[in-house]
Parts: sequence; structure tokens; C-alpha cells
Amino acid sequence: MRHRERADYERATIHAILDEALICHVGFVVDGQPFVLPTTHARIDDLLYLHGAAGNHMLGSLADGAPLCVTVTLIDALVLARSYFRHSMNYRSVVVLGAGRRVVDAGEKGRAMHALIERVHPGRSALLRAPTAQELELTTVLALPIEEASAKIRTGPPIDLEADYARPCWAGVLPLELKGGTPVPDARVLPGLAPPPEITSWSRKPRGG
Amino acid sequence: MRHRERADYERATIHAILDEALICHVGFVVDGQPFVLPTTHARIDDLLYLHGAAGNHMLGSLADGAPLCVTVTLIDALVLARSYFRHSMNYRSVVVLGAGRRVVDAGEKGRAMHALIERVHPGRSALLRAPTAQELELTTVLALPIEEASAKIRTGPPIDLEADYARPCWAGVLPLELKGGTPVPDARVLPGLAPPPEITSWSRKPRGG
Repeated sequence: MRHRERADYERATIHAILDEALICHVGFVVDGQPFVLPTTHARIDDLLYLHGAAGNHMLGSLADGAPLCVTVTLIDALVLARSYFRHSMNYRSVVVLGAGRRVVDAGEKGRAMHALIERVHPGRSALLRAPTAQELELTTVLALPIEEASAKIRTGPPIDLEADYARPCWAGVLPLELKGGTPVPDARVLPGLAPPPEITSWSRKPRGG
Repeated sequence: MRHRERADYERATIHAILDEALICHVGFVVDGQPFVLPTTHARIDDLLYLHGAAGNHMLGSLADGAPLCVTVTLIDALVLARSYFRHSMNYRSVVVLGAGRRVVDAGEKGRAMHALIERVHPGRSALLRAPTAQELELTTVLALPIEEASAKIRTGPPIDLEADYARPCWAGVLPLELKGGTPVPDARVLPGLAPPPEITSWSRKPRGG
């Protein structure tokens, strides 16, 4: 019972971290050489979908079920201590190991693309021209089960050596927030169309603590 | 001549991206399985220093000169188009391939640690208690030559299909800014010590464009 509760808690934590990260870093191996490339991702239940736009190199290596590693990292705060070595960052990261499956079903691919849009821009998919069959065909999406996954989290203030607390040096935590600036319309936005509130107020709130 | 100019330009670009990123993602291989872990880094000239706190797993695998990949990614803006598939992000990323060398010289290790602090907190190292010989010994630092490195950059507005421009949907670019929130002093900051201006005004400005 206790094990199940802990597992559910961990799963919820892992999902929340994956859902909040704008991008992930995908690691794969070609002839013994590791490569790490950034790409976008979305989660549907216990499946992680990776958008294949990151490069043919990655797609060619991953689609055949080769082992991969997907890592996301959220930096929540800078941790400022009184000595070099106790400086740190508060962060939440997730590592998912597994093998990718190339999504071929147009329905599944469409749902993955929908999730990719909605995760970053909630509600926006309703405004957009829907994908064509050809667009879906030309896009590569990989699915990775979120099974072998772990989260690592640092929170809280710096931990200094006892003698260092006497030092006249401000120390603590600086929460970081990812904020949207002023939206820049492209040259062909129709007259009278202003950016919607979810754009003008886009942010990822600090979790600092 | 032209080649040299281009190479210098690329090198400056690669250095600037590495210097701006708060963290990097390090890829390495253990028994054919790729792993990707976040860690902090600093650059001195053409050497990239990785802080070894990310885990023994990584250190054990990298210190013997095994191949690795260090990737940093800066997300500059969200790119909002009029169809699913033309959504994107403006970003700058760098990939460095090579093999790590474990830094053993205390002087070099101290310079690397200094660079690690100063990159994120310019000027702060002067306020801190200097590292002890024991601290230096207990910390693992890897050095990686920035030789086999490449940058990838996306800038500019969304590029929609011609027919989609008639769509009554706001489109453009939302620059993102990483901003410091309200600093949280730890419980033992000496009375009268306020956070310095470089903390209260910490930010990474949007490059959106």
C-alpha cells in the first residue's frame, strides 16, 4: 500500500515536470558516440511523444527502437551561498530511458501534435488550421513509454558550513520566472487582431523556495 | 581568408551561447545505453569545464576519456503560426563532442570553479569564502576542448503556408525572458545585509526576434 502511494506520487511528480518543460534533450548513440539534441515533447497518459523536427540524424537513429534517454530540466531558482562550493540551483529534472516507436497511425500522430500545441499554448489549437494528411505524413513523431523514469529535485535554501554563516555576505534563493515579453506580430496579421490574453500574459511562475 | 572569418564568427557565436546558458545537458554511454544529465558548466577560452556534482554515474563514465556530448539550448521565443505544423521556437543551441579530462591540478580546478560562479553571478566570487584545498580535492571537474562544436539557431517570425495567412488568427513571436523574482534570504543572513543589485535585477533579456 505504502509502496503504491509512493509510486503514484512519483508518477504524478514525473508527469508534472515533463508537462511544464518547454523542451527536452534527447540522447542517443551512433557508433559509440553519444548525441544530445533538443526537441519538443508532449505527454498523453504514460506515453511521451517527441517531435521529430530535431534532425534526421536523431530520427534515423531512434526510430528503429535503439535505446534513448530523454531528460527535461526546470531551473526554479539560483541558490546563493557564502562559499563557492555551496552555490547551487533549485531544479526539478526527469530522466526517461527506453526505446522509441515511430508513430505511423495518422490518428495517433494527430493527437500527439494536438498535445504538443496545447501543452505550450492551451486553447490555441481551436484557432488553427487543422493538419492535412500530407503534413501528418511528412512529420515524424516518436512515442516512448514513461516506464523507466526518475525525478530529481532540489529545493530550499543554501546549506553553508557552520563557520561561514558569520560571513557578511547576503545568501539565499533567487526564484526564476520564465516570462513572455512584448508579443511581436508577424507582417501579415489581419487588421484588428490583437494577441490573445494567454499570449500577453504567458509565464511560468517561479517555484523558487 | 573568408573561411577564417566564418570560423571566427562561428566560434564567437558558440562561445556566447555556452556562456549564456545556465546549465548544459551531458550525454554519455554506459553499456550501449545513453544517459543525459544536467549539470553546470563554465568556459575559459576554448575549454569547457563541467561541474561533477551531477552524479557519480556520470563522473565514473566520463573521467576515463569516454566520448561525450555536451548540449546547451537557449529558448529565445515562442513562434506562433496559423497551423499546427508551423509552430516553432526561436532558439540557439550548441553541441560539443569530445572526451572529458579529469582536472587534477588544484590551480586549474580553482580557476574553473571561479569561472562557474562568475558566469552566473558576476562579481560574487569576491564576497565568498575561498575554496579550501580539501573542497577542491573533493570536487570533480571535467575539462572538454571546444573543438568539435556546432551551433544551430532559429530566428524570425513564423513562416505560414500562403493560404493560411487569410486566417483570422494572431500570429507572431513571443520573446521569452528569464527573470529573477523576489530574493528569499536564508534564515541566517546577518542583520542589515540586503541582496545586492545584481541579485535584485538578475535577468536574461529576451532576444526574441
